[in-house]
Amino acid sequence: MLKETDFIKNYIKKGTKQTKHSLNFEDDIAIVDNYAYSTDTISEDIHFFSDDDPKTIAKKLIRANISDLISKGVKPKFCLLNFSSGKLINQRWLDSFFKSFHQDMKSYNLNLIGGDTIATKNKTVLSLTIFGPVNSKKIIKRSTAKFSDFIYVSGTIGDAFIGMSIKKKQIKFDKKAKEKLISKYLVPEPQTNLTNLIRNKANAATDISDGLLNDLNNICTTSKLGAEIKFSSIPKSKEVIKFLSMYKRYEKQILIGGDDYQILFTGPKGLEKYKNVTKIGRMTRKKGIKITDKNFNNLLEGFTHSLY
Amino acid sequence: MLKETDFIKNYIKKGTKQTKHSLNFEDDIAIVDNYAYSTDTISEDIHFFSDDDPKTIAKKLIRANISDLISKGVKPKFCLLNFSSGKLINQRWLDSFFKSFHQDMKSYNLNLIGGDTIATKNKTVLSLTIFGPVNSKKIIKRSTAKFSDFIYVSGTIGDAFIGMSIKKKQIKFDKKAKEKLISKYLVPEPQTNLTNLIRNKANAATDISDGLLNDLNNICTTSKLGAEIKFSSIPKSKEVIKFLSMYKRYEKQILIGGDDYQILFTGPKGLEKYKNVTKIGRMTRKKGIKITDKNFNNLLEGFTHSLY
Repeated sequence: MLKETDFIKNYIKKGTKQTKHSLNFEDDIAIVDNYAYSTDTISEDIHFFSDDDPKTIAKKLIRANISDLISKGVKPKFCLLNFSSGKLINQRWLDSFFKSFHQDMKSYNLNLIGGDTIATKNKTVLSLTIFGPVNSKKIIKRSTAKFSDFIYVSGTIGDAFIGMSIKKKQIKFDKKAKEKLISKYLVPEPQTNLTNLIRNKANAATDISDGLLNDLNNICTTSKLGAEIKFSSIPKSKEVIKFLSMYKRYEKQILIGGDDYQILFTGPKGLEKYKNVTKIGRMTRKKGIKITDKNFNNLLEGFTHSLY
Repeated sequence: MLKETDFIKNYIKKGTKQTKHSLNFEDDIAIVDNYAYSTDTISEDIHFFSDDDPKTIAKKLIRANISDLISKGVKPKFCLLNFSSGKLINQRWLDSFFKSFHQDMKSYNLNLIGGDTIATKNKTVLSLTIFGPVNSKKIIKRSTAKFSDFIYVSGTIGDAFIGMSIKKKQIKFDKKAKEKLISKYLVPEPQTNLTNLIRNKANAATDISDGLLNDLNNICTTSKLGAEIKFSSIPKSKEVIKFLSMYKRYEKQILIGGDDYQILFTGPKGLEKYKNVTKIGRMTRKKGIKITDKNFNNLLEGFTHSLY
């Protein structure tokens, strides 16, 4: 089994001499001159399924990408689309996908400037490369948290993971709440309104695409610090609170499950006064992540990307 | 069946308001400020096969991409890699692929700045997005051929297509010549030495990735002109000449078969004096492409990309 972090270490960083533009491959963005770049790939059977509504697939592709940039305080502006069309594709699918794609491009003020299309008899794979203007001296990295920082998240945590679990495992739950959680999984809502706050106030930031703990761990290891958070402080929607009261074993899961596309950031005290921002803990000199009000063990080992 | 050109018309151009940066989607590049961008996707079972040497796959990915930029007179400089790892991938494959990948990055002076990796149980799909500095007022487009222009190509034509045919259909041919043609198919050699000539002398240019006639047709239709070429003027390697003498039906095929990654360009008279450049015809006011010394019919209908 090859972990994603080892893949980057062994195959990407190792052969690359100049890592200034890649920020040493420690963040999900790259910088050239006055633009920040990010790219994301989603694939049938992994990030979406053949019976998913193409409208939601288009929105997920765009929003997951946007999330990487806005969590660094960058407004995305241009994008290129790689469309590897699989056997599921037909005219109806394309009509629906691209109607939704262009709607989202418009809502997020994005400009599609190019791409490539290939046809296969396999699964559909979609990549989007996205970039926006940045002041290259003012990049909010993962590695720049300070030991005196407090830890904040945007929005609520766990909705997407529970939505996905309900959808995949057909867990019984209140119909209306179920639909809301599934839609949070299918169509993330990146916090574009926080871009300026991140740029002006945060010391370190990342989006939460790989799970709160995993992304917090990335901030900790690259910043050479640890963290203490309170489970009870983590913002949860009323649907998630209700779900957790019925299925207690999911408490751990919402910390390691991904797809929320919220922003996790560190900075000085008082940032919880901003809309949609909650303080959940603080950075520590002591390495590792401690959850002060729960007795969860070995959480991070439960979640790693692997390549084979 | 949906043709690639109709896909771009119906799904890409239609929803995109601002097409300045995409050059109206008529060229395989995009321009933002002082950079030109290009992106290409290759997939297992289409552009490479599970038993291909990973070394050649890495080189093909990089070189097919470079080709789009250098055929516009642009020196590529930065790239992002989307690696959708399929079930064929193991450590040995990765070791070999990335060794070759980084070798080529170095030879072409490219800087890998970022990317994304996902793991699937399906086929491997690889995209590279590549960009390099450009004087945005001096882009050599497809649409800017003049009716008085002569038509030129770089290198030799047909090697890759015949190499692919020999490989796939196991056609009998002289062993040494066979290996040379197959290697031209597997590992293209973009004419980086012609970048300056294109930038300074050409009026219109494109790479020949989709076949000489198809790519010439793109210049003709976007420039609202026609073309006359001579089959006998088309530069052919001694291996191709020998192959055609044995398999005459391939004469047509080398005009519509792709993968040569040579440059097709138009410009004033006399450019055939440059190394690796051959004059093959001239642009005409009369629409359509005429091959003056052969009686080939409906050649263009033999080759279209389709999506379903």
